Amino acid sequence: MDPLVERFLAGDRRALARILSRVEDDTPEGRAYLRQLYPRSGRAHTVGITGGPGAGKSTLTGALAAEYRRRGKTVGIIAVDPSSPFSRGAILGDRIRMQAHATDPGVFIRSMATRGHLGGLAPATADALIALEAAGRDVVIIETVGVGQDEIDVVRLAAVVSVVLTPSSGDDVQMIKAGIMEIADVFVINKADQAGVDRLQRQLEAMLAMAPQGADLPPIVRTVATENRGIDGWVAALRSRPKRAEDAGEHWKERLLELMRQRLVERVMQKALSEEELCAAAREVAARRRNPYEFVSEILKRAGIE
Amino acid sequence: MDPLVERFLAGDRRALARILSRVEDDTPEGRAYLRQLYPRSGRAHTVGITGGPGAGKSTLTGALAAEYRRRGKTVGIIAVDPSSPFSRGAILGDRIRMQAHATDPGVFIRSMATRGHLGGLAPATADALIALEAAGRDVVIIETVGVGQDEIDVVRLAAVVSVVLTPSSGDDVQMIKAGIMEIADVFVINKADQAGVDRLQRQLEAMLAMAPQGADLPPIVRTVATENRGIDGWVAALRSRPKRAEDAGEHWKERLLELMRQRLVERVMQKALSEEELCAAAREVAARRRNPYEFVSEILKRAGIE
Repeated sequence: MDPLVERFLAGDRRALARILSRVEDDTPEGRAYLRQLYPRSGRAHTVGITGGPGAGKSTLTGALAAEYRRRGKTVGIIAVDPSSPFSRGAILGDRIRMQAHATDPGVFIRSMATRGHLGGLAPATADALIALEAAGRDVVIIETVGVGQDEIDVVRLAAVVSVVLTPSSGDDVQMIKAGIMEIADVFVINKADQAGVDRLQRQLEAMLAMAPQGADLPPIVRTVATENRGIDGWVAALRSRPKRAEDAGEHWKERLLELMRQRLVERVMQKALSEEELCAAAREVAARRRNPYEFVSEILKRAGIE
Repeated sequence: MDPLVERFLAGDRRALARILSRVEDDTPEGRAYLRQLYPRSGRAHTVGITGGPGAGKSTLTGALAAEYRRRGKTVGIIAVDPSSPFSRGAILGDRIRMQAHATDPGVFIRSMATRGHLGGLAPATADALIALEAAGRDVVIIETVGVGQDEIDVVRLAAVVSVVLTPSSGDDVQMIKAGIMEIADVFVINKADQAGVDRLQRQLEAMLAMAPQGADLPPIVRTVATENRGIDGWVAALRSRPKRAEDAGEHWKERLLELMRQRLVERVMQKALSEEELCAAAREVAARRRNPYEFVSEILKRAGIE
């Protein structure tokens, strides 16, 4: 066995961090690691957390991790952050709120950037999740920064998903638009000591009342994350929810296709197309001097596939 | 020539709508259309509009389209909306604001939903853009609803991008986090009759002052879209900005790879893997009874590629 994997399986955090980096870079080496780690995954309790800006998601994630630690569980956190040259400071600000866990080996925090993943953010997160599960984490929390489609795809990887709202945010409409409400297994009203909490709860209940009869409605829990209030009730609600098995099958169907696409295009690049030729062709296409559809046919013929 | 394409090229709106649907469905037939239409694309002035919720993007898009119409230009609008069973009403609400153009054949509006595009939203939008350009639209406006990574990818397809802010929104920090600020070629401060407009302008200028020396800074224009104020100045600012050629090359490199991936996986599915077997394998993988990486190797071997 690969010595890095051996150290990884023995619980070495640096080995975990290194394997995560290779996995995220999505190299053949990273995929070889995944192939070894996959059979050891799938045993963690996975929780997704999403919600609008300013809802207190990082603080909630920190509080949730602390609660699981109190219950003797090891925790992995995948914090999915948009990355941009302007945003480093903001990300650091968020992460500093989790520093309480910085010295606890029972909590492993991994930040994932939005950009630079060929196959998209959800596959990269799925791979990181496999690694964290194989590393033996009892609970893995996936926290996203925003409420866009990317974040929805990411957070659906978890077995149970919490959508966080606050009385004062007023972003409910935007989240309904983004389709984030339907993925909630548990609603969290954070900052529940603020005015308007009853109104928000009634709005949520009215929205849920539109669900088809007999539907299994998500519970609504109230928290004040900064004071650790309501976190135990949240954990109980998360445990009470059935796992989303269909999502997992659907996810893996897409993922299998994606793995095939990657491998196939790598094959073509090895056999019939250099990076330089591809970049040159892209510039020609952008300048309207070359037809992209004809170029692709040509390359596939050259690779003996079409 | 395909009779549908003939009618399309003669300016028939229904033919345009039908071709757009096939293109969006991303079928081999849709791609065959793109292959024919591609050489006729690339001549439109393309404008991307993005910004936070409530910034008035739909109203601005409508006002911008009206201004171009006054100048004798034909306009295509691609409105990129998140789609969800909960959101139809919200989308309709937005779209109704554009009804002023409903009876003008010089304006063609296409709504694109976030979900259901295998290759992602940006490729689907890029394809729709090719069709609208080939249909001879002088100006194509791409409007996105949110400020997530998806929206950034989409809006970068345009030659010039406007990021919309408002004095009262307070979502500047969130947009900085999402990396939306860097893609602005022109900043629009909409609702410029509200209090706080000077403060917002100073904040923007302070942010722009951090750019490297000699950088070509985006102008800031002020509008009140509901009263059609400032729209002419916005059009002038949009025209003054250089096209983002690098983005186009980068976009096409990704798109060529994506086209290859699609075609390759279609080939494998024809030759070696039924939809049923894929779904069954995905369920097995989700249940941890099968290793996804080994499954993919097996299929590629069966297809004679590995």
